Amino acid sequence: MTSTSDHRPFETVSEAKAFGGVQGVYSHASAETGTEMTFAVYLPPQAESLAAGETLPVLYYLSGLTCTHANVTEKGEYRAACAEHGIIFVAPDTSPRGEDVPDADGEYDFGLGAGFYVDATQAPYAEHYRMRSYVERELPALIEANFPVDPARQAIMGHSMGGHGALTVGLRNPDRFRSISAFAPIVAPSLVPWGEKALGRYLGEDRQSWREYDAVALIEDGARADCVLVDQGMADHFLVEQLQTHRLAEACKAAGMDAMIRLQEGYDHSYFFISTFMAEHVRWHAERLKA
Amino acid sequence: MTSTSDHRPFETVSEAKAFGGVQGVYSHASAETGTEMTFAVYLPPQAESLAAGETLPVLYYLSGLTCTHANVTEKGEYRAACAEHGIIFVAPDTSPRGEDVPDADGEYDFGLGAGFYVDATQAPYAEHYRMRSYVERELPALIEANFPVDPARQAIMGHSMGGHGALTVGLRNPDRFRSISAFAPIVAPSLVPWGEKALGRYLGEDRQSWREYDAVALIEDGARADCVLVDQGMADHFLVEQLQTHRLAEACKAAGMDAMIRLQEGYDHSYFFISTFMAEHVRWHAERLKA
Repeated sequence: MTSTSDHRPFETVSEAKAFGGVQGVYSHASAETGTEMTFAVYLPPQAESLAAGETLPVLYYLSGLTCTHANVTEKGEYRAACAEHGIIFVAPDTSPRGEDVPDADGEYDFGLGAGFYVDATQAPYAEHYRMRSYVERELPALIEANFPVDPARQAIMGHSMGGHGALTVGLRNPDRFRSISAFAPIVAPSLVPWGEKALGRYLGEDRQSWREYDAVALIEDGARADCVLVDQGMADHFLVEQLQTHRLAEACKAAGMDAMIRLQEGYDHSYFFISTFMAEHVRWHAERLKA
Repeated sequence: MTSTSDHRPFETVSEAKAFGGVQGVYSHASAETGTEMTFAVYLPPQAESLAAGETLPVLYYLSGLTCTHANVTEKGEYRAACAEHGIIFVAPDTSPRGEDVPDADGEYDFGLGAGFYVDATQAPYAEHYRMRSYVERELPALIEANFPVDPARQAIMGHSMGGHGALTVGLRNPDRFRSISAFAPIVAPSLVPWGEKALGRYLGEDRQSWREYDAVALIEDGARADCVLVDQGMADHFLVEQLQTHRLAEACKAAGMDAMIRLQEGYDHSYFFISTFMAEHVRWHAERLKA
C-alpha cells in the first residue's frame, strides 16, 4: 500500500483492478471530524466507458463495531455483483481516528471503531465524533465531486452498528436514498446495552435526543422509507440482547410501513453471513436504483 | 473463535454457515510436521443431503508466502461457486508453526509462512518442514477419512508459492488430480530469487534435488498433466523477477503439453485479482471433476 499525491482532494492509499473495475482506498482531511478519514470506493467496469456527464448509481455501506473500511472491502464479496449491475460501492470508516481522538481504553463498543453514526454533543466527544454529518453530508459531497455518481440514484446499506447507521440515515433522508438494506442491524439502540452506552455518552442522558438515532423511534415518530430489506441470522449471538429485530418488524407493522425482514436459519453475525447474501442485496438495490 | 472437543481426530476451531454450507476451521497434531496444523474446509450445501457413502469432489487450495488458511478463507470468494457446483474446498496452512519450528527472523520469504511445499532435507529444517508430505499425503488422508470427499475426483489449485505447490503436487500425481490451476504461480523456483533461497536452504545446494519441486523442471523431466489453467496479472510486481510465467509456457510448448495460460491486463498479485477469477477457476475444475 503506497500513498501517492493526487489531483483530487484526497490521497490514494491503494488502487487495484478487481472484477474489471477498480477497488480504491483513499484518505482525506475531514472538516467534520477534524481528522484524516479513510474510505474505500469500488468503481465497476462500466465507469471506464462513461461519456462526459454520464453517471452510475451509488451504494453506501456502513460497517459495524470494531471495523474500518477494510472489513467489507476484503470480506464483503460485493464486487462481482457491483460489476454486473454497474453500481459504485462506497465504504467509510466507523469513527474518527488519531492520537487526539478520545477513546475508551479496552472497550470495543465505544470510541474508536464505534462512532455509531451520530454527531456527539457531549465532551470530550463532540469535537471529533461527527460521523452523522460525515456520512450524511461531507463524504457524499466528496464522492459526488470526484466520482461519476448520480445523486438521484443513491442507496445505503450496513451491518450491525452500520445497519443501525443505514436505517437511521435512510429514514431521515427518504428523498435521497431509494433503498435501504441491512445485515443484522441494531434496530432500537435506545433499548439495548450497546446503544444505551454509546448514545448516553455521545449525546447525554436526555433520551429524547436519541430518537433521531434510533430506527424504531424514527418510525414511531413518523419517518418512513419505501424500500427496506433486512437479513438477520438466527444463530447470531447478538440477536436477543443487542439486535432485537422483532422491534423493527413491530414498528413497521404499527406504522403500516412495508419492510422485508428475513430471518435466516443458522447464520451468525460474521462476514460469512454477510457475504452469503451480499449479491442478493446489491441486486435488490440495483433494481430500485435503475427503476 | 472457540475450540471444542470433537469425535473427529481434529479440533474444531470455528464453524459458520455460509452460502448454505459450512465454513469450518480445524486443527490437528500433524505426524509429518510434528506440530499442530490448522486447515479450513468448506462443505457446500450438497454435503448435507448426501446418502450414506455418497461423496463430493474436492478442490485443494495452496496459499502463497506469508499466508495461512485464513487469507483465502476470508478473501478468496470461492464459496458461492463451490456451493453452486457442489465442491468441497480445502485450504491448509503454508508451513509448520510453533515455538520449536526454526524460522528466519524478519524474512517473509523463508521459514514460517514459507514452507514451499517441500520435504526439507537440511538441518535445522528437516524435522518440521515436511509440507510436501503433509499436503500430498497426511492432509488428504485426514480429509478423506472425515469428510464426504471422493478420492477419484480431486483437483488442486494455488496462488504464488501455492501456485508452485499446486503445479508441482499436481504434476507429480497426475493420476490423482484431474485438474490443476494457479494464480500467479512461481513456475520455475530453481531460477528465481524466492525459489533459490528457499530450495537452497531446505534442500541444500545439489540443484538436481530441486527439480521435483520445480514445475518447469518437472515438465522438462517428463511429467505431464492433462488440464492446467493459469491466470497471471500483467500488473503483478513479482512477474518479471519471481514468477516468469513465460517459462511455463515455453516448457509446455517444448513438451507438447496443453496448458491454458492467460495473461490478465491490469491485475496485480493480490486477492483482488484472485477473487476476480476464482469463480471461473472453480467452475473450470467442476467441469473436469464431474466429467
